[in-house]
Amino acid sequence: MKVDGKPYRTIWLGADGTTVQAIDQTLLPHQFVIRDLRTMEDAERAIRTMIVRGAPLIGAAAGYGMALAMATDSSDSMLARAYTVLMESRPTAVNLRWALDDLRALLAPLPAAKRREAAYKRAAEICDEDAEICRRIGENGLGEIRRLKPRGDRLNALTHCNAGWLATVDWGTALSPIYQAHDAGIPIHVWVDETRPRNQGASLTAWELGKHGVPHTVIADNAGGHLMQHGKVDFCIVGTDRTTRRGDVCNKIGTYLKALAAHDNGVPFYIGLPYPTIDWTLEDGRDIPIEERNAAELSRIAGRTASGEVVTVDVLPEGSPAANPAFDVTPARLVTALITERGVCAASEAGLLSLYPEQAKAA
Amino acid sequence: MKVDGKPYRTIWLGADGTTVQAIDQTLLPHQFVIRDLRTMEDAERAIRTMIVRGAPLIGAAAGYGMALAMATDSSDSMLARAYTVLMESRPTAVNLRWALDDLRALLAPLPAAKRREAAYKRAAEICDEDAEICRRIGENGLGEIRRLKPRGDRLNALTHCNAGWLATVDWGTALSPIYQAHDAGIPIHVWVDETRPRNQGASLTAWELGKHGVPHTVIADNAGGHLMQHGKVDFCIVGTDRTTRRGDVCNKIGTYLKALAAHDNGVPFYIGLPYPTIDWTLEDGRDIPIEERNAAELSRIAGRTASGEVVTVDVLPEGSPAANPAFDVTPARLVTALITERGVCAASEAGLLSLYPEQAKAA
Repeated sequence: MKVDGKPYRTIWLGADGTTVQAIDQTLLPHQFVIRDLRTMEDAERAIRTMIVRGAPLIGAAAGYGMALAMATDSSDSMLARAYTVLMESRPTAVNLRWALDDLRALLAPLPAAKRREAAYKRAAEICDEDAEICRRIGENGLGEIRRLKPRGDRLNALTHCNAGWLATVDWGTALSPIYQAHDAGIPIHVWVDETRPRNQGASLTAWELGKHGVPHTVIADNAGGHLMQHGKVDFCIVGTDRTTRRGDVCNKIGTYLKALAAHDNGVPFYIGLPYPTIDWTLEDGRDIPIEERNAAELSRIAGRTASGEVVTVDVLPEGSPAANPAFDVTPARLVTALITERGVCAASEAGLLSLYPEQAKAA
Repeated sequence: MKVDGKPYRTIWLGADGTTVQAIDQTLLPHQFVIRDLRTMEDAERAIRTMIVRGAPLIGAAAGYGMALAMATDSSDSMLARAYTVLMESRPTAVNLRWALDDLRALLAPLPAAKRREAAYKRAAEICDEDAEICRRIGENGLGEIRRLKPRGDRLNALTHCNAGWLATVDWGTALSPIYQAHDAGIPIHVWVDETRPRNQGASLTAWELGKHGVPHTVIADNAGGHLMQHGKVDFCIVGTDRTTRRGDVCNKIGTYLKALAAHDNGVPFYIGLPYPTIDWTLEDGRDIPIEERNAAELSRIAGRTASGEVVTVDVLPEGSPAANPAFDVTPARLVTALITERGVCAASEAGLLSLYPEQAKAA
């Protein structure tokens, strides 16, 4: 998407054909800095320190990490080492494993001299494939959006966390339909949940919407219910980290509260998702283990001082403990529809199987 | 309540019998500072700059402000001037007007020489009356709490914003039952909603619970629904700024979302309130106008740096607007019971009239 009018992806191959470049997401929204990744170690550090984040983008970065490794040394031992080092950069990221397995399977049979070129080519394909999946989610979501009747002179969406292009290679998942609606000339405005405690809404979603030119307003996570009660939200759309076979949705903590409010006020609640986030082995969302993250994410906040310096401050009383569950599960009964790269379906096993019939269990 | 073992109120008469002292709530939770209010102007500034805040405490501070005025000059003209100056310190505060009307009606007929003593006496009574109302809310709430069965080895409450002793003279409203349960030896733990955007939960509720020794954990406002889904909340209790005749409750933004989650998970949702917050003239909570506060409350956050300095930082992207509705309305259907100084009742007109029969409309 665009940053001040110039199209960007979150990661791309530099003009020299070797260096990989990526937006440093740790500095957003305060600074827009592009990092050069010149070695496999640079790529590993970018993933580990969350310069790049978001499942699809992590996969893409791992692909380029492998390419950078091959550019330095295309031996079998480097292939093995790069696989191990990159895998450990974010051990729980499913897309990381997928991308590395894919690259290793491609490269291992090749003669060493062919590996560099093949790795760069495949990494670029991974990026293009992700962008295409997200573009299609947007296209399908746009079909839904066109059917909604705005209650005012603009269509008001509400989103939680960041499921935008910064979390992917381009377009985003939940935000892709919003970008496509905006680009199609539909007057759309987005209520952006701040998304405590990591503030991904306030720092990433607001930044990317603003830079692309999409009208938006940041709100406290507490405000969405009130806005829905007063007819100021026409639809909600969020991403998902994991969707069960029956359509339960695990997403950033607080999503469930917004889904309850949408249900209570007759506001459609959509999920934008690419197929890899569907866990066909899991039926009930209550079985998803919820990551408990560091309490410091709640107690410490980074921001700009009046002089422009970025500092981190403590906001809790000394001695007050904090708890930080990172995700919650929204039961399928509260979800209006799932929007995937293949189409739009009900949040149910039957709905998902209508789009992914190959996942039907053998009778 | 206690601060590190020593009993405090939020406002009190100093040892010299003239100076009024108050906890400076603008510095909490980072610094515990007691301010001397020596003149009516000091009291006016304390109310205006929110050194003292919370409806009952504002009323008490206005009472003492009038006493400080009389201590300087007990003439009719000073009585008139103090009334005007203090009234303008927080023009929308109902308790402020009530206290000033009360003091003026008491003092105006008295000879000037008697006004000083009468004003201090009445201000002290206002404080004592508020503390007693809050103590009774706690006593009545404790009766409810004793009937709840904890799902674990402790009773888990969840509260939003600050309805504790810092918002009153002592005890608090929603937190009074919690203090009384704790003091009675009931093992109770409180999930404290951070309460964005002003962070009253993280900064005030966590501070006062911690200083009194009540086990608590600060959570993001987003986390409560997840905790309720997993049986980690035995009851919710919050305060209210305004309660309608039918039991709709206007409270800090985000309260409605917690009430929805409590309802969805069978968790009791209580409101602790003193009678002056009941608006007998209003039936439907949707008719309550909602204050839209400054967006800077969302975009700027104060905290301690590593060196202990308190600084304010900007957390939003430059150019991203923010909206800040300050309250929302929880419909009576989501409220388990109202807990007042007179007892516990259903959140309905019939329920409220069972406690306040004098408010029945003439047939």
